[in-house]
Amino acid sequence: MQTTDVLVVGSSAAGLVAALTAKSTDPSRSVTVVRPEEKTLVPCGIPYTFGSIESTDRNILPSDKMFADAGVELVFGTVAEIQTGRRFCRLESGEEIGWKRLVLATGSAPYVPSWLPGTDKLNVFTVPKDKTYLDAMKLELQAAERVVVIGAGFIGVEISDELAQQGKQVVLMEKLPQILGAAFDADVANRAEEILKERGVTVQIEADVREIRGGDRASGVVLADGTVLDADAVVLAVGYRPRSRIAVEAGLVVDEAGFIVVDEYLRTSAEGIFAVGDCAQKTDFATRKAIPVMLASTACAEARTAGINLFKLSAVKTFSGTISIFSTALGDTGFGVAGLTETQARKESFDIVTGIFEGMDKHPGALAHTHRQFIKLVVGRESGVILGGEILGGLSTGELTNMLGFIIQNRMDVNAVLTSQIGTHPLLTASPAGYPLLKAAADAAQQIMGAAVAGVA
Amino acid sequence: MQTTDVLVVGSSAAGLVAALTAKSTDPSRSVTVVRPEEKTLVPCGIPYTFGSIESTDRNILPSDKMFADAGVELVFGTVAEIQTGRRFCRLESGEEIGWKRLVLATGSAPYVPSWLPGTDKLNVFTVPKDKTYLDAMKLELQAAERVVVIGAGFIGVEISDELAQQGKQVVLMEKLPQILGAAFDADVANRAEEILKERGVTVQIEADVREIRGGDRASGVVLADGTVLDADAVVLAVGYRPRSRIAVEAGLVVDEAGFIVVDEYLRTSAEGIFAVGDCAQKTDFATRKAIPVMLASTACAEARTAGINLFKLSAVKTFSGTISIFSTALGDTGFGVAGLTETQARKESFDIVTGIFEGMDKHPGALAHTHRQFIKLVVGRESGVILGGEILGGLSTGELTNMLGFIIQNRMDVNAVLTSQIGTHPLLTASPAGYPLLKAAADAAQQIMGAAVAGVA
Repeated sequence: MQTTDVLVVGSSAAGLVAALTAKSTDPSRSVTVVRPEEKTLVPCGIPYTFGSIESTDRNILPSDKMFADAGVELVFGTVAEIQTGRRFCRLESGEEIGWKRLVLATGSAPYVPSWLPGTDKLNVFTVPKDKTYLDAMKLELQAAERVVVIGAGFIGVEISDELAQQGKQVVLMEKLPQILGAAFDADVANRAEEILKERGVTVQIEADVREIRGGDRASGVVLADGTVLDADAVVLAVGYRPRSRIAVEAGLVVDEAGFIVVDEYLRTSAEGIFAVGDCAQKTDFATRKAIPVMLASTACAEARTAGINLFKLSAVKTFSGTISIFSTALGDTGFGVAGLTETQARKESFDIVTGIFEGMDKHPGALAHTHRQFIKLVVGRESGVILGGEILGGLSTGELTNMLGFIIQNRMDVNAVLTSQIGTHPLLTASPAGYPLLKAAADAAQQIMGAAVAGVA
Repeated sequence: MQTTDVLVVGSSAAGLVAALTAKSTDPSRSVTVVRPEEKTLVPCGIPYTFGSIESTDRNILPSDKMFADAGVELVFGTVAEIQTGRRFCRLESGEEIGWKRLVLATGSAPYVPSWLPGTDKLNVFTVPKDKTYLDAMKLELQAAERVVVIGAGFIGVEISDELAQQGKQVVLMEKLPQILGAAFDADVANRAEEILKERGVTVQIEADVREIRGGDRASGVVLADGTVLDADAVVLAVGYRPRSRIAVEAGLVVDEAGFIVVDEYLRTSAEGIFAVGDCAQKTDFATRKAIPVMLASTACAEARTAGINLFKLSAVKTFSGTISIFSTALGDTGFGVAGLTETQARKESFDIVTGIFEGMDKHPGALAHTHRQFIKLVVGRESGVILGGEILGGLSTGELTNMLGFIIQNRMDVNAVLTSQIGTHPLLTASPAGYPLLKAAADAAQQIMGAAVAGVA
């Protein structure tokens, strides 16, 4: 039986980073990665392979070269069984690989609702991280004129937009009263919906989809009121579920939603076994509850933490809870959120105020390509600590959202933020006197402390 | 004699924010602003009024409306004298205004080198924050074919680029061996120089300018080796000096470079008098030495701090030292720096390592408008604390530089940064596994702690 110091199962973002971190943390250790697929896709790039990126061939994670350069061994195969006591894995091929530490980065798979008849028809697709599947799906979608997308989370919204830009008639169905799930408060989500409509997507919220109709091939989607929407193809984008079957079968503790339970070092309930990425349980940074966030960026942060802590726990860093940090773009408008939304915070009974400001993302407004920039901060009333924030702006929204992530991770309060030092430039940022992040912090500070204490300008 | 609780002298970025913060901190206080000019320009927008912004009329700070809305009184005039003991100011008109607190936001004026003959010729310009002057200057420059710009700091570089985009033959002269002063290390500054050249500006470093030649009007610029460069106009951009004459005359302590000395609450040596912005002394966050930084963003941070602390010191916030945060753009390439450069840190004898990574600012690279992104972090070897960093990237560079500013202000170390949570999106940011900021932190961590401790991936 082949043995390795560290065996990583899966090589999407989490597996890749876990393996490379393990190797660089201690180059004397042997590190092996097992994965079933020949090539691994850049996960967040997948929706864009239906339009902006000409082919999935141009959306490949360069993991093979990175493994080779780092001295990480790559084995193609599917792990069928984990033996926790004797510390080895059996592959479907029958091959066995022994390990001292095992990192499960098995990811997630699209959820197919069992209550919805017709999901098995030939032209009904999910969006898995599977190149062969996606290539076949793309060919089918290219031939389709009318596409119904069910589920308006990030994947559903991004694919709808890409297909509409390709000239398809796209209807996006969402059962909730707003798009982008619960990631944003309604004010921001509604603006995203407007833009999506302006860009040619028909958006139907509070849609009660009951059936995908047709023979071998779907011909349409039936709603609760009997309406039938004709469709040449249907895309199911109603979420993902953790792939944790082999962990369950090996007796690891898994939560009700199917996530492998981990501690702050990403250790599972079984000695020597870690789990990272979509398959691992996430605890919210603020609420301390489990949250079903699945993000490549979160996965990478977990993988770095796990990779450092495999053989000896490091005081360097534990993983102190997941901060949901999302961003996306529709045309030249960016949407971002970090930490708690107002809705989430109120639901968790945090006593909060919100600080809001809307300005421009460049200055003066007379410059070309200037975009409005709206920021809402969610702030603890007693502490002044920033729990979350939402941003609607131009194409700098992604990094601005990450800035907010650093503010939340450092548990900064509004007073620290409103007097923070920033740099500004006409072509790159808002103005120094009207920088929306600082103005939103000032707005919140004024509500918390009253005008007599909090300075606002 | 009219009296006011708070008198602010100057209404560019610092005066504007100081007045509004004072008013909102305590709306019962009367706040008055005195300024000489009819309209105040957006300071960092000025270079762009020579091209990208069609007229200075479109680069006006909306301060008058903001003052009116906030209940701040605006007086047009020039302060000729400060009486510290009896607490009043005399304007040039003879009018006197009494105050309980005085905020000096008198700004800076272009430096005209006395050693350079010919600076007084009609077509030799500086770049003051003066609309009337700039409007006349723009007319002259529009008629010029050949422009020599002396001094390749931010203003000189930005104006040169704007004029070159207008089709002028521009020669930019810099006495130092690199452009953009000492703001960047040579590796980044040299890349900016290359781009500037690609965009049509002739750049001459280590240029020893000796004379501006001509009669009433300049006809050329003479170098030490006798070379003469013909010019239809000359722009002097060799820096700014604080406007502190009235402070000096009133007996306030001013440092050797002419900056008004202030403490961490922005209080001057005279009771009840504060100074903010370009006229006020800056102490570097890391070196604790005086630094001649003049930035509207720094000015606004000082003004917020002063505005809060005018009548009672607030534990909320002192100003703990200036972090230089600069950014600029040439075409679609952004350049940013926060905190210390490598050169500055070594000169101050900080024991440092640098962490470097170069990747892309979107992912995968197959997406349109992807720009390379280079990050260099300057890190204390013993502490791991991030002292500064430089960024070369696309148009998200401004906000990425501000993120770095928050990292420095929070005194984060490389381990905290390399395992930080970020959000990523194909259209907006680098990839989660190759996010340059985290990879640069990992590079530094590995040097500090050796591969056996620091995880890198």
